[in-house]
Amino acid sequence: MTGKHYVEDFRVPPGSHTRLSDFDPDFKGRHSKEKALAKIDALREKMDDLQQKLFAERKRSLLVCLQALDAGGKDGVVKHVIGSMNPDGCRVANFKEPTQEELAHDFLWRIEAQMPKRGEIAIFNRSHYEDVLVVRVHNLVPKAVWSQRYGQINDFERRHAANGTVILKFFLHISKDEQLKRFEQRLDDPAKRWKISESDYTEREYWDDYERAYDDVLAKCNAEQAPWFVIPANHKWFRDVAISEIIVATLESMNIQVPKPTVDLEEIRRKYHSALDEDKHAKAGHRRRGHAAHR
Amino acid sequence: MTGKHYVEDFRVPPGSHTRLSDFDPDFKGRHSKEKALAKIDALREKMDDLQQKLFAERKRSLLVCLQALDAGGKDGVVKHVIGSMNPDGCRVANFKEPTQEELAHDFLWRIEAQMPKRGEIAIFNRSHYEDVLVVRVHNLVPKAVWSQRYGQINDFERRHAANGTVILKFFLHISKDEQLKRFEQRLDDPAKRWKISESDYTEREYWDDYERAYDDVLAKCNAEQAPWFVIPANHKWFRDVAISEIIVATLESMNIQVPKPTVDLEEIRRKYHSALDEDKHAKAGHRRRGHAAHR
Repeated sequence: MTGKHYVEDFRVPPGSHTRLSDFDPDFKGRHSKEKALAKIDALREKMDDLQQKLFAERKRSLLVCLQALDAGGKDGVVKHVIGSMNPDGCRVANFKEPTQEELAHDFLWRIEAQMPKRGEIAIFNRSHYEDVLVVRVHNLVPKAVWSQRYGQINDFERRHAANGTVILKFFLHISKDEQLKRFEQRLDDPAKRWKISESDYTEREYWDDYERAYDDVLAKCNAEQAPWFVIPANHKWFRDVAISEIIVATLESMNIQVPKPTVDLEEIRRKYHSALDEDKHAKAGHRRRGHAAHR
Repeated sequence: MTGKHYVEDFRVPPGSHTRLSDFDPDFKGRHSKEKALAKIDALREKMDDLQQKLFAERKRSLLVCLQALDAGGKDGVVKHVIGSMNPDGCRVANFKEPTQEELAHDFLWRIEAQMPKRGEIAIFNRSHYEDVLVVRVHNLVPKAVWSQRYGQINDFERRHAANGTVILKFFLHISKDEQLKRFEQRLDDPAKRWKISESDYTEREYWDDYERAYDDVLAKCNAEQAPWFVIPANHKWFRDVAISEIIVATLESMNIQVPKPTVDLEEIRRKYHSALDEDKHAKAGHRRRGHAAHR
């Protein structure tokens, strides 16, 4: 495995005119799937440990935005990468079609409400970027409105970064034929086929429009403090190892400090954990009755 | 392993005057730790599968309340039992000391806000029961107020059960000496000792008061539709296998129905997945450039 290089490999260079088509969705480096899965397990443990420290420090937070076209693997990442972290301290927010109340507010209103608090990791399954993606592709608001949003998103992300939220944005990049393959697998899966709709397929006609909309996002909303990563996602195991690697490297780079105890540990030890005390408590324990007694 | 008998073994019999002291916190049956850990893995997969179905059905929900004295293992259960479920569709709510706004409302206001929606599993790490436990033990409100709450809790749980929420309530039962042992381990753990406070120890003086308060909860709030389980929790692995078993058995007993597809799957297959189409898309895929191109 290449260590922490994915942070550089898949980072969209800021200020560049990188396009989605510059990235190969099929990329998997020189890795074997087997080694990658073992690596993911090791990264999970690290992530878990770092999340606990972030929670203890309670000064900063992490926001992970997941974006992709349909079947790109957002749910898979939530399950396999994020699912390993303690749900207390790690929260997933799903941004689906806005409700009437959400639509009655500014587009960042529902986003603000879900931002992570200090010590927390928030995962956005879809995000505020939908307001310059699906909204733009399907003309849901006039161009005069959505075209202002890139700057508004940058201001929003800059404020949160300045106030302690580290932001990572992942685009899960699959090819159009990989999407069709996954749709076909869905047809064969009794647990998943209930949610198939014809619009999954007709939406494919807008593939190029979505690519253009993403290209604009990568060009306009990719500041140093809120970077985009384009993750090759045709191979699920590669997608998972790359994202795990980037999240772990990011948390490690934050140099998280667990606070010092507020009490004198030696005094506590002497006062409550002396041999005498333990003996007394051990005896008290034996007085309890057996399990069968409650029947 | 005993199969699904834990549902009966640790269920507090409704209408009984069962007391906490009737249960042995040290119980572990005839199990080996090794076999239990393998069993937990198998149960996790089942739980995961059932959670997906519950989410697909989107008609009912599951509420799991965790209660325990300090160091009883609530966080451990959240991490090892619940952590395996997809965070999308499974949410943890922590009820800590109420905020000023929460205190300005009725005690069930913040609980109502966190109840699971249809298809969802919610885990309460502490719950509305604190309002007849710590609140009672420390006289935070007059007896005239807290003594009314048992009935109010029953009404609340009955309404939610009638509207599709299946409710499970677990008390993680450790002995007083096991608590002291865990406190001592905390002293030795650099990742955890920052949160030690002297009040962890002085709170032990109220141990018997808490037991009495729990005894009243088990006697007064243990309806058929919102059962209490007292889980032997001195052995963490036994605690985890027992709770996993009960959650799986409960979800299985719900006979969850995944909805039928809304489209004609064969027509979709013919229209979009014909060999001709696939061939065309496979060719389109080859036109993409290699990974190195974006540098």
